[in-house]
Amino acid sequence: MARDHRKLAAIVAADVVGYSRLMGRDESGTLARLRKNRSERLDPVLTKYGGRLVKLTGDGTLVEFPSAVDALSAAIEFQQAMVEVNRDQPADLALMFRIGLHLGDLIVEGDDLYGDGVNIAARLEAEAPPGGIIVSSRSRGAVLR
Amino acid sequence: MARDHRKLAAIVAADVVGYSRLMGRDESGTLARLRKNRSERLDPVLTKYGGRLVKLTGDGTLVEFPSAVDALSAAIEFQQAMVEVNRDQPADLALMFRIGLHLGDLIVEGDDLYGDGVNIAARLEAEAPPGGIIVSSRSRGAVLR
Repeated sequence: MARDHRKLAAIVAADVVGYSRLMGRDESGTLARLRKNRSERLDPVLTKYGGRLVKLTGDGTLVEFPSAVDALSAAIEFQQAMVEVNRDQPADLALMFRIGLHLGDLIVEGDDLYGDGVNIAARLEAEAPPGGIIVSSRSRGAVLR
Repeated sequence: MARDHRKLAAIVAADVVGYSRLMGRDESGTLARLRKNRSERLDPVLTKYGGRLVKLTGDGTLVEFPSAVDALSAAIEFQQAMVEVNRDQPADLALMFRIGLHLGDLIVEGDDLYGDGVNIAARLEAEAPPGGIIVSSRSRGAVLR
């Protein structure tokens, strides 16, 4: 029997705070802003820190990094960039992200990734404050040393 | 300034229990047995589980794996293979290994690896019982899920 192809990776899950509300107010405007932020804020950070976009689902983004240190640096830079983006927006139109960061031994199947590590990153993300990042203790340990 | 090239990896450190004593008794015989075990027991397990030999230092061996699950499987299979090897040896001539397993965000420089993760794997190994494996809690967490 062939063994699963496995690898350690840092997983970053992100989504937009109040996405349904924003879409309810202005669907095409929200989508346009989301797309613009992906290309102007997210993509450069992924390129800089070696992140690979695994999946986009509505407002959700799943990215893997070979390094936890690089994943955290990327998450911080992205959130800082979003502070700039939102500076001149009325608060109820701000596009704010929640981010969860975890580290897992994942199963690779083609371009997709499976494993509890992915689900845990998503659960951490759901608990993160707007504009914030929640880091699991395992990834924190790997970042600190 | 160029950023360090970093990556997550599972680190396996191994050494031979009572190496100085064995060398004191029979230097060329011990070296020959060590070499034979590397090629017949260690190398096949590394190939099977995708391990890369980072460094050999006397009786010490440092290996990296892309996956913690694969690293632990490899360590277990190797220790089991050594039980077979030692079955017909007098106890004081047995070639027994101690193994430490950790997981870290390491700095890659050419073929070498740096970072506290490497030192921690070596410290765990020093505490392992003969024929045994000590797994850090971080790697244990990554293996369990």
